[in-house]
Amino acid sequence: MKINFEHSTKLRVRYGETDQMGYCYYGNYAQYFEVGRVEAMRELGMTYKSLEERGIMLPVLHFEVYYKAPAIYDDELTITTKISELEGTRLSFDYTIVNENDKLISTAKTTLVFVNKDSMRPTPPPNDFINLISQHEIE
Amino acid sequence: MKINFEHSTKLRVRYGETDQMGYCYYGNYAQYFEVGRVEAMRELGMTYKSLEERGIMLPVLHFEVYYKAPAIYDDELTITTKISELEGTRLSFDYTIVNENDKLISTAKTTLVFVNKDSMRPTPPPNDFINLISQHEIE
Amino acid sequence: MKINFEHSTKLRVRYGETDQMGYCYYGNYAQYFEVGRVEAMRELGMTYKSLEERGIMLPVLHFEVYYKAPAIYDDELTITTKISELEGTRLSFDYTIVNENDKLISTAKTTLVFVNKDSMRPTPPPNDFINLISQHEIE
Amino acid sequence: MKINFEHSTKLRVRYGETDQMGYCYYGNYAQYFEVGRVEAMRELGMTYKSLEERGIMLPVLHFEVYYKAPAIYDDELTITTKISELEGTRLSFDYTIVNENDKLISTAKTTLVFVNKDSMRPTPPPNDFINLISQHEIE
Repeated sequence: MKINFEHSTKLRVRYGETDQMGYCYYGNYAQYFEVGRVEAMRELGMTYKSLEERGIMLPVLHFEVYYKAPAIYDDELTITTKISELEGTRLSFDYTIVNENDKLISTAKTTLVFVNKDSMRPTPPPNDFINLISQHEIE
Repeated sequence: MKINFEHSTKLRVRYGETDQMGYCYYGNYAQYFEVGRVEAMRELGMTYKSLEERGIMLPVLHFEVYYKAPAIYDDELTITTKISELEGTRLSFDYTIVNENDKLISTAKTTLVFVNKDSMRPTPPPNDFINLISQHEIE
Repeated sequence: MKINFEHSTKLRVRYGETDQMGYCYYGNYAQYFEVGRVEAMRELGMTYKSLEERGIMLPVLHFEVYYKAPAIYDDELTITTKISELEGTRLSFDYTIVNENDKLISTAKTTLVFVNKDSMRPTPPPNDFINLISQHEIE
Repeated sequence: MKINFEHSTKLRVRYGETDQMGYCYYGNYAQYFEVGRVEAMRELGMTYKSLEERGIMLPVLHFEVYYKAPAIYDDELTITTKISELEGTRLSFDYTIVNENDKLISTAKTTLVFVNKDSMRPTPPPNDFINLISQHEIE
């Protein structure tokens, strides 16, 4: 199912996230995208935390990121996260990051899989999650 | 130019690199691949550090990673890094990570760009680097 | 000079900051305290970023932290930072972190030193910083 | 009980561990000391991992670190870890870090507590751990 649920959140590049090039280290973006999807799910109406409390985990299967321009220390970044697809047990997110001057810093996508904590096997998303996400289905 | 220079290095998953799923956090792999390419370049004969000292940086433009199986705390991982292509100012690396049981944990690729530290513009790689890498060119 | 300038800021524990105990990893608090002092200096009227742009760095000399109770994933923490002392070239900060239930999570202190970026030697803080901080001197 | 069990291990400063000062970020040392104590315990004869598998966790209660000289990118650091004291449920470690030129980079100490995973309460260390550690007791 194709979905179009978008949410934006802001965060500031921390000093410890820079590297000696003076840029935000490329490895730290994974945390930024995680913040983006966690806040998108909170806005959707189901926190990632509550999923885990019900025995469902969402590990990442695939992550692809383009670095368009450097983010630098103390930049306030806007992460826009789109929940874009639910296909069986897999949930996909698309992201863009812009800085305060609306310059494009990065685009990315991740695919996660619903996993049962006990069996450690893929599992369909819970019905209430499907209900929430279906409200944002696009044909 | 297509290249086939391969090098393997080992590292252990640190406690601080796990997350509450009990897995190595997906965002920490970027550092593992960086360790892989740094050690591959050292083996090739030119450290990344020496490039920076000559005013050349190598920021990452593109990073794609597949998570095949979880890495867990204290696992000793083997990262195999292949320098796979030099195309103008861009250098590409392919990676695989396996654990002690030779189970495939992850595959990934990154594309980096040679940048002049002063102009902050893409720049051709230095001749001695091209000489080194050309010895591993495949037709 | 003893100082009493206090500022509070909030942040949320990221998934990637937890470890397999299910707690925020002890090493991640250093970044939280850094966020605390960066925001305290912004509130005081001089960003850490602007200091660096003027050729002054503030590396940490000493860091001590007590972990009183675990912070867990998705907790919204309040970091209260007190700029507590300026002694020659050294600037000290005290911190407390509480969670949403006002439970004490951590206390800490850091001592930083003003360093000239070119000479890499300790240097007195700039006069405008001393002026700002003096307004909060306590006898 | 005062203990004197010492072990040294080496690691290299990763690029992603530097910050824009060009130093290893102060917050990353916590991971280095963790590597130090994990390897010290492996050498002692009981891995931290095996303790967790038996339902015992070792969260950090107190951490103090002095930064004596900067560690920089690609430095090979030697971390010397001393298991220094077992007092009831609390285990203390002392650390020093030197670089390749034997320059002192940092000294630190941590106190950890044995905790039962189910009750989340402090618990005495297991007997086999006490036996191992007692062999290194000093008067």
